Amino acid sequence: MTNHSQSLASVDTPAAIIDTQRMQHNIHCMQTRMDALGVRFRPHVKTTKCSPVVKAQIAAGASGITVSTLKEATQFFDDGITDILYAVGMVANKLPQALALRRRGCDLKILTDSADSARAIVAFGAAHGEMFEVWIEIDTDGHRSGIRPDEPALLDVATILHEGGACLGGVMTHAGSSYELNTREALVAMAEQERSGCVRAAERLRQAGLPCPVVSVGSTPTALSAENLQGVTEVRAGVYVFFDLVMHNVGVCSTDDIALSVLTTVIGHQAEKGWAIVDAGWMAMSRDRGTQKQQRDFGYGLVCGIDGAVIPGYILGGANQEHGILSARRRPGHRHCRALPDRDPTAHPAQPRLRHRRAVSCLPGS
Amino acid sequence: MTNHSQSLASVDTPAAIIDTQRMQHNIHCMQTRMDALGVRFRPHVKTTKCSPVVKAQIAAGASGITVSTLKEATQFFDDGITDILYAVGMVANKLPQALALRRRGCDLKILTDSADSARAIVAFGAAHGEMFEVWIEIDTDGHRSGIRPDEPALLDVATILHEGGACLGGVMTHAGSSYELNTREALVAMAEQERSGCVRAAERLRQAGLPCPVVSVGSTPTALSAENLQGVTEVRAGVYVFFDLVMHNVGVCSTDDIALSVLTTVIGHQAEKGWAIVDAGWMAMSRDRGTQKQQRDFGYGLVCGIDGAVIPGYILGGANQEHGILSARRRPGHRHCRALPDRDPTAHPAQPRLRHRRAVSCLPGS
Repeated sequence: MTNHSQSLASVDTPAAIIDTQRMQHNIHCMQTRMDALGVRFRPHVKTTKCSPVVKAQIAAGASGITVSTLKEATQFFDDGITDILYAVGMVANKLPQALALRRRGCDLKILTDSADSARAIVAFGAAHGEMFEVWIEIDTDGHRSGIRPDEPALLDVATILHEGGACLGGVMTHAGSSYELNTREALVAMAEQERSGCVRAAERLRQAGLPCPVVSVGSTPTALSAENLQGVTEVRAGVYVFFDLVMHNVGVCSTDDIALSVLTTVIGHQAEKGWAIVDAGWMAMSRDRGTQKQQRDFGYGLVCGIDGAVIPGYILGGANQEHGILSARRRPGHRHCRALPDRDPTAHPAQPRLRHRRAVSCLPGS
Repeated sequence: MTNHSQSLASVDTPAAIIDTQRMQHNIHCMQTRMDALGVRFRPHVKTTKCSPVVKAQIAAGASGITVSTLKEATQFFDDGITDILYAVGMVANKLPQALALRRRGCDLKILTDSADSARAIVAFGAAHGEMFEVWIEIDTDGHRSGIRPDEPALLDVATILHEGGACLGGVMTHAGSSYELNTREALVAMAEQERSGCVRAAERLRQAGLPCPVVSVGSTPTALSAENLQGVTEVRAGVYVFFDLVMHNVGVCSTDDIALSVLTTVIGHQAEKGWAIVDAGWMAMSRDRGTQKQQRDFGYGLVCGIDGAVIPGYILGGANQEHGILSARRRPGHRHCRALPDRDPTAHPAQPRLRHRRAVSCLPGS
């Protein structure tokens, strides 16, 4: 983890580079915002899966973590973190792993959105004398899983859990469709939809005499857009820690906030086409072309100098497994790339630094 | 590695499943084809990075391997394979790693397509008393790297290497644009273009009095389409070992040849939308939406029963990091998914098996 051009010159490429100053700034800004809104913050660690990063999030004030696999839960419990939400719907064949974690002292919370799954949890808990803490997943934007706030099934699932001897810990939702937005107004409205839907679900449980201490919401775009979080007890977000070009297009960060880039080496040229071939393909950059469906497509990445400053007019436009094709951005109406100008960072075997769009799992320490 | 439904029921999900019978069939068919065409076969191991798979390829008759990183070269050299082609253009800062491998006894061949890189190799070799074996990359289809067969630069680069004390091992090309084709005629023509271009480059070198023992061509589609390989000494291919839905759309395999699938568990439903949510997201399935640009888009995968047979009419249409959304394929003109019929494998928490499109790097043994 360094942002010094000097030491980068000797790093084997391709390599993921974390700008720790930017990362700390992102962590600080999010935590400050959550403190001001009066809610706890539970970062989603699937973004980095990286212990030093998660330690920095907790040092800044985060309360517990969110994980997307029980493997991540085990890794971070082994690192000393006990308050862990496994934020993917629980199924019967994963209950033994969840039990093993709880038996080791992990304060693991599990999730469900169906009566079948709730019954399986309750039956397994009874058979093993374990009181699982279970949260109910709420669907506030129709993008994936969860029970809609006004569905009858909400009370059915909660009753199965509560009467079956589980600890009904609360409700949670994730407005993942916020990734598809790109105006302040739409983001504010989605954050309010996420908040009000989840609070509404909690109120229905409480009106039915059921416990619901936690009301958990979040996604990076809504966490950074919510104007009030009345009734919410905690927020979850992950991508904010490094940000990426998708978040830039959503409008919640600038390119100067992006803390992850990939250092690469020019390994060849096709001068007639204006291409430089680099040693960062999609294995290094990620195959996730997140900006493809957005209003501005950054290909596989923006190009930066070794100092981290964006070099305007270039993108990593193509990629194979271990090769990237770096070129001038095509202008509308021009069928061919422009020839690379004098300022071209690729005209000699230099090391341009490509702005990355997504966290990769090969970060140092992960 | 198993294809027995019985034992799959107890496997933690998501899990990559290799059908070894299909894999062995694919290996056998390719090797038999190469033997009949009178060429050696050098599999590209970046597809699997998996020692048992590569051992099966060599046992079937392969001569040496192709790698895309020096890390792969080191892994397979440690496994006892010495004849290794590093098929990505060499740059100065990777020469120390290449030297270290050669000093350990690895018969590593390196690649170049530029005078700058050739000079760097020659200078480094002279400084360290090492005679590198270097192949020259030829561009036969304009898709990425290489020198075109008739370019003057070909003789310049070869002369720098030969006079500078390197071992000029041969020429190689990869007609990667064959992935964009989908008719037998176009594939046969591309295979011939790849062959004739590479042979032409070799002839130019030999006419100039330069050595060129190896003429290496290949991609899975062209290897399976070439009608003759006159003048070629070896072929390279990787994807054929498991195949995938991209190759199905290219027309060089059927779905019954695909040897890699991902076992997943249904973790929830959105009945009104006809969705089943499964625990295989793009981390398990790969984010590589290879069929997106093809005539038939399979989303993140086709759906199979636990016996491996395709269940018609369903795809893994959406995916987040750890969640997949399984649904009925949309029919043209229908705006919504059809409700899932009785035969629906997803109406209960069964384990549908999703046909995978790309090799993942988390295979057993890799």
